[in-house]
Amino acid sequence: MEYFGYIAAFLTTASFLPQAIKTIKTKDTESISLLMYSMFVLGVVLWLVYGIVIKDIPIIIANIFTFSLSGTILVVKIINK
Amino acid sequence: MEYFGYIAAFLTTASFLPQAIKTIKTKDTESISLLMYSMFVLGVVLWLVYGIVIKDIPIIIANIFTFSLSGTILVVKIINK
Repeated sequence: MEYFGYIAAFLTTASFLPQAIKTIKTKDTESISLLMYSMFVLGVVLWLVYGIVIKDIPIIIANIFTFSLSGTILVVKIINK
Repeated sequence: MEYFGYIAAFLTTASFLPQAIKTIKTKDTESISLLMYSMFVLGVVLWLVYGIVIKDIPIIIANIFTFSLSGTILVVKIINK
């Protein structure tokens, strides 16, 4: 049953890849919420800190990946504001 | 140090609220990735299944909340496609 957890973690993490690609390609961030990505990126940084503190490798790896993607979307959003 | 985890979980979950409000208000989903929200909502459903299987109340509650918000965004995106 752990499979559900792994597939779930993969999907919710990897889902930011198509959004990051679309955002970089089109530079269009009109309908994307600045507050959402500000909260999300801050949350991911805290997940990363938490992962480092409790020494949990999957949390660390997943959140480095998510930070890169959601951080990129946030930067494009701020530049194009 | 568990605080980091709780604040992180709150931020990454609640971040979908401003996006859902913006999307419902403006009906504009042009720059939102359909593939991102398709993968994300499917991932959240699997998180929910996983939470139910392992009987973890925080996972269940967080993912019911996230499913409502991200599911709403996905529905508006599909309708306005």
